[in-house]
Amino acid sequence: MSNVQELPLLEPTGGQGVVPCCPPLTERPMSAPEAETAARMFKALGDPVRLRLFSAVASHEGGEACVCDISDVGVSQPTVSHHLKKLKEAGLLTSERRGTWVYYRVEPSVLAAMGQLLAMPAAA
Amino acid sequence: MSNVQELPLLEPTGGQGVVPCCPPLTERPMSAPEAETAARMFKALGDPVRLRLFSAVASHEGGEACVCDISDVGVSQPTVSHHLKKLKEAGLLTSERRGTWVYYRVEPSVLAAMGQLLAMPAAA
Repeated sequence: MSNVQELPLLEPTGGQGVVPCCPPLTERPMSAPEAETAARMFKALGDPVRLRLFSAVASHEGGEACVCDISDVGVSQPTVSHHLKKLKEAGLLTSERRGTWVYYRVEPSVLAAMGQLLAMPAAA
Repeated sequence: MSNVQELPLLEPTGGQGVVPCCPPLTERPMSAPEAETAARMFKALGDPVRLRLFSAVASHEGGEACVCDISDVGVSQPTVSHHLKKLKEAGLLTSERRGTWVYYRVEPSVLAAMGQLLAMPAAA
């Protein structure tokens, strides 16, 4: 059993994919629950090694990678696995075991939701 | 004298505004220096109270606010000031003193740069 909560940034929309939890930061002040959710995700990317690993997965051929593909960031493989787990817990990566290896994939809808949070209003 | 370094996410481009430091996370693996720069900014938004304050400034009338305008997030005014200072050090806010109050303003080019980092590739 795990204490870690999956990040509910995105809500299912009846088979139509997902919708972001929060409006752009510039639209109105965020509520406390919205900020809790979004801050968890920004925090997950707030570490240089995690950010490099996330980028390595996101830019890898086919949009997925196993630990064996992305171990060149200068930290040990257990450390790589630890950071990938954190990214997964934050909802930024999904994973799937195939044979010996666990493959990680970026959750595109979460990236899109974060991008929308940072969207600027159209010029007046 | 201060130990705090201004975040060099954006580089001047000869009076033509600024350009982002880093390509989209999905384009290629980030280098270590790029990740250091970008992680500092994500980390600054990785706290719920800071994120609410940032959103309060970003969404305030005229795109700027003083501490007097945004003290309703349930923390003391010194705490508000502390978090605004952190956001300023990360390059996300600029500030200007006018009379009694310091006014904070979102740096739009930094938001745009963060948004670009999170941009997804065009569908194939």
